[in-house]
Formats: sequence, C-alpha cells, structure tokens
Amino acid sequence: MIGPPEIAAAADRIRGHVRRTPVVEGIAGAVMLKLEHLQHTGSFKPRGAFNTLLSQDVPAAGVVAASGGNHGAAVAHAARALGHPAHIFVPEIAGPSKIALIERTGAELTVVPGAYANALDAAREHEERTGAMQVHAYDAPGTVTGQGTLFAEWEAQGLDADTVLIAVGGGGLIGGALAWFNGRRKVVAVESEGTATLHTALAEGPDAQIVPAGIAANALGASRIGRIAYDLAKRDGIDSVVVTDAAIADAQRLLWQEMRQLVEPAGAAALAALASGAYRPANGETVAVLVCGGNIAPDPLTS
Amino acid sequence: MIGPPEIAAAADRIRGHVRRTPVVEGIAGAVMLKLEHLQHTGSFKPRGAFNTLLSQDVPAAGVVAASGGNHGAAVAHAARALGHPAHIFVPEIAGPSKIALIERTGAELTVVPGAYANALDAAREHEERTGAMQVHAYDAPGTVTGQGTLFAEWEAQGLDADTVLIAVGGGGLIGGALAWFNGRRKVVAVESEGTATLHTALAEGPDAQIVPAGIAANALGASRIGRIAYDLAKRDGIDSVVVTDAAIADAQRLLWQEMRQLVEPAGAAALAALASGAYRPANGETVAVLVCGGNIAPDPLTS
Repeated sequence: MIGPPEIAAAADRIRGHVRRTPVVEGIAGAVMLKLEHLQHTGSFKPRGAFNTLLSQDVPAAGVVAASGGNHGAAVAHAARALGHPAHIFVPEIAGPSKIALIERTGAELTVVPGAYANALDAAREHEERTGAMQVHAYDAPGTVTGQGTLFAEWEAQGLDADTVLIAVGGGGLIGGALAWFNGRRKVVAVESEGTATLHTALAEGPDAQIVPAGIAANALGASRIGRIAYDLAKRDGIDSVVVTDAAIADAQRLLWQEMRQLVEPAGAAALAALASGAYRPANGETVAVLVCGGNIAPDPLTS
Repeated sequence: MIGPPEIAAAADRIRGHVRRTPVVEGIAGAVMLKLEHLQHTGSFKPRGAFNTLLSQDVPAAGVVAASGGNHGAAVAHAARALGHPAHIFVPEIAGPSKIALIERTGAELTVVPGAYANALDAAREHEERTGAMQVHAYDAPGTVTGQGTLFAEWEAQGLDADTVLIAVGGGGLIGGALAWFNGRRKVVAVESEGTATLHTALAEGPDAQIVPAGIAANALGASRIGRIAYDLAKRDGIDSVVVTDAAIADAQRLLWQEMRQLVEPAGAAALAALASGAYRPANGETVAVLVCGGNIAPDPLTS
C-alpha cells in the first residue's frame, strides 16, 4: 500500500521538475484554495508522470500514455524534459486545445475515435508492439504516489482545514490524497454527474462501469474507478459527492469573477460542491478546496 | 513624503478588506511573480481605495472616481463594502468587460466620451456639485500609500530579488513601491509604447503630456505622470523601460501557456520587459515581476 514514506520519497525525486503551486485564501466558504492549475501543462498530472519516469528505467522505445488530454500533456512534457520519446493516444473528446498542448511538446500524437477506454486500448497495443513503457493515467502506484506529493506540498504550505475537497476522475489524485493524509484529514470526493465512477463503485462495487458524459468528461471521464483509489476510499470510508454540470459552470464563473482564475470544468468541480451546497460542512468544520486543472476549451488565446 | 511608516499603517488599516495575493516561482528569467490580479476586482487598486476610504470621513454624498476601469471598479467595490454610495466616471475605452465589472458592484456609472482625462473632468464637476469625496486614481497620498502595501506584503512573503519590475500608468503603484522600498531594492518602471508618461516626463519634465494609445491604454493611459510618482522616481533615479504592444501580447500568451494565468495587457507589461529583452538584468542580478491586473477584454466567460 502507498503511504507517506513513499510519497515523501517521490517529492524528493520530482523536486525541480514540478512547480510549487500557490495557495490563496478561499472563496465560497472555503478557507483556502490550492491553485494546482498553475502547474506545468496546466494540471497536477506532471507529478505522477515525473515520478514514474524517474523511478523506472525507461526503454529506448520511450513512453506511451492514453489520456483525455491532461495526463498525455504531462507525460509528453516529462518525457521531453528527461530526453525520452513519447507517444500519446487521446480520444476525440480531448478537444483542440488539449491536443494543441500535447503537440507543442513535440510528442507523437494519435487521436483515437471513441472514449478514453478506446485510447487506452490503442496505447496498450502500442506498448506491446514497441516495448515502450506505459504510464497509466491513474491506476498505477507510480502515478498515485506522484500525485500524492501535491498534498505533502500543501501541508508544508500551511494547509489548515478539517476537510479537503478533491475532484475525482479515475482516482489518481484522490488516491494520492488518501495515501498521504492516511486518515489525518477528512477527504471528500467530488465527481460530475456524468463521470461519477467512484460514487457508482462505492454503491455497486469496484467493477461498476459508467459511460462518461457531460462538461468534465475529457478530464474526469474514466469508465471505471481505479482499483488503488477504490481500495483507499473503502479503507477510509470517505464521503462521495456528485455535482451537476450547471453547478460546475457556476463555479467556473465564480473563480473567474472573484479571482480571475479561468479553469476547465474539472478544475472547478471541487469548488462547485461547496458553492452549490452539494457538500455542506458541519458547524465549525473548515474546508479547503483543490483547483486541479486549467486547460479550458476553447483556448482563450489561440495564437 | 510617503514612506514605510505610513505604508505599514495603511496595511493595518486595510487588513481584512484586501486579499493577500499569492506569489509563485517565476518564468522567462524572473525568480518570482506576484499574482496581484487575484486581488478583489482583478487589480491592485482596492488597496488604495480602501486606504483612502478608511482614513478620511466620507460625506453622505459618498465617493466619486474617474477611471479607465480598474480604479473605478475598486472604488465601487470598497464603497459598497463600507456602505457608501459611489459614482464612477469612465471613458469609453474602459470597454464592456470593465464597465460590467463596475455595474456588478451597484455603483452609479457614467460613461464619458473621450479619454481618461475627460472622465476626470466629469468626476471633478460631480465632486463640486454634490460634495462627494474624490478618490484620485493615482496622484493622491492615500492612493499611493495604499498601493504601497502590496510591496510590504510581498516582502513579508519572502520577496528575494535585487530588482522588481512594475508596470506604470499614472504612477500610483510605482509610487507606492518606491516609497516602501526607499532605495533598498532596484525598481524598474515598465510602460507600453502608447502610454509612456513616466518615460516622457523623465526626459522632458514633469508636465510632459502624451496622448494614450495602444493595447494597454485603458489601464495605463494617463496623459501625464502623477507628481508623487515623478518626484519619487527622480529621487531614486530609477530605470524606465518601454515595451511594444507586440511584446505585451507575447507576454500575455506566455502567462497563459506556461501558467494558465489570463491577464490584461497592463498585467503582462512588466513580464514583457523581461521576456522581450527590453530590460536585460546584469550578470547575477535577480529579478521579480509584478502581475498587476487581470481584467481582460473580451471577458472569456460572459454570463
């Protein structure tokens, strides 16, 4: 099981490769926000990507990843920084701005018809054919451990809240949070109505599948929650909250109007849970919110 | 003359009304950025507005201000927070997104044909007619002292650079910087090619006038540098740098692509000086950059 020692080691490993992202006083009832969308490539994903690439021998064939966009951009960025070739497979719903982000890294890119699961199948074929190293977007120990460094960093920055709200896609990020906090803080999982893999799995079992849809589908749209995250969520008995796409759009507007932060739907999902009342803190319970991704479409400054 | 004691007192006065804005490691050769566009109303201006309103008796007629947009939004925001009526005069070039920002505060708003100087004339007429208190956008001690709190805050956050790059409009912000640093750090003034009031005044004298133009005109577009800032700039013999509109647009793209920060031209001007080479640090000279405003047009999330 991944825990604080593994995450502390990962933080040492990736230091200098990832940005220490800022924290700021909260809005909408949150005491604090962490602005992880200022990370390289606009999401938390480089933490897991660098950790994976720096803790294993990368073959000459390089690395391969399947991604709704953010993980692919992060793997491509990390591979370039470390001098490895990369081939990224994305589904069509990744969209032009995330595809452009990956293309700017110089990685090879294949756009696959269908959803994330289809891109993952294509990436696995590539892995078998070429011997490239697969970097899984969420359900691999190296990925989860790397994402956990975000929460070690946040505590070093003075995180002072009873509860942390975190958006969930396949579970790499929340897996890292649960592994780091180890029950010391309450973690609330937030999913959009069209991507509620964890919420569904907690009700129906770990193999429950969904068909990703809606405003946050390209970032949060796994068809099944990762097993690592599921097991940690079960261990800790965490709260799971689902927010509407409309609440997410409202939270995006709130972040822009109140703080001039323009983020993608997944990045605003955790705040949406608080702002919409989908998560209601108990009397005196302090809540911190993670803003995890900023790769909005369309790109407001297409060059 | 305004100095550190007055600014420290202002910081105490406005505490709780302004946001402590985050700092983050730099890009484009800067060691550090301060992200002041996360301030309430999207610019540093509430610092001066709150300081002015909290250090004087506000008449029943309330407050009046002329502004290219950012100062007006800040005065309107501060007046509402403190329970005073406000009337804001803006020139047409303030543009729809800044006008909407002011309207959301509930202040009275008058759009004046012409430039900032015409809005200022209209605000002065209103002041004489109604007895409302004028809050000058840059050339008043209360305003400059309030803006100076930004630099006190930045040093408390660990500002560690030989030199600070700051965009200059009428001079309220750089006046506050020079008053706070008091020669302890090098301050570099950055102006766009169409709004170079300080640069022109340093060459031709304090009464030199320009006709504001170009990409940053609504935020940096005074026709003459404020006297307070001019005197402080002369005292310290500061460097004055002018950047092209194209360099500013490039810096906006850089902030978006590298850090998912979408800011207005004035907000990117200081970074533009470094990224374009208009300011070239000496060997070993460390440089920090202030990002001062985020109210971009058009609004990317018009609701």
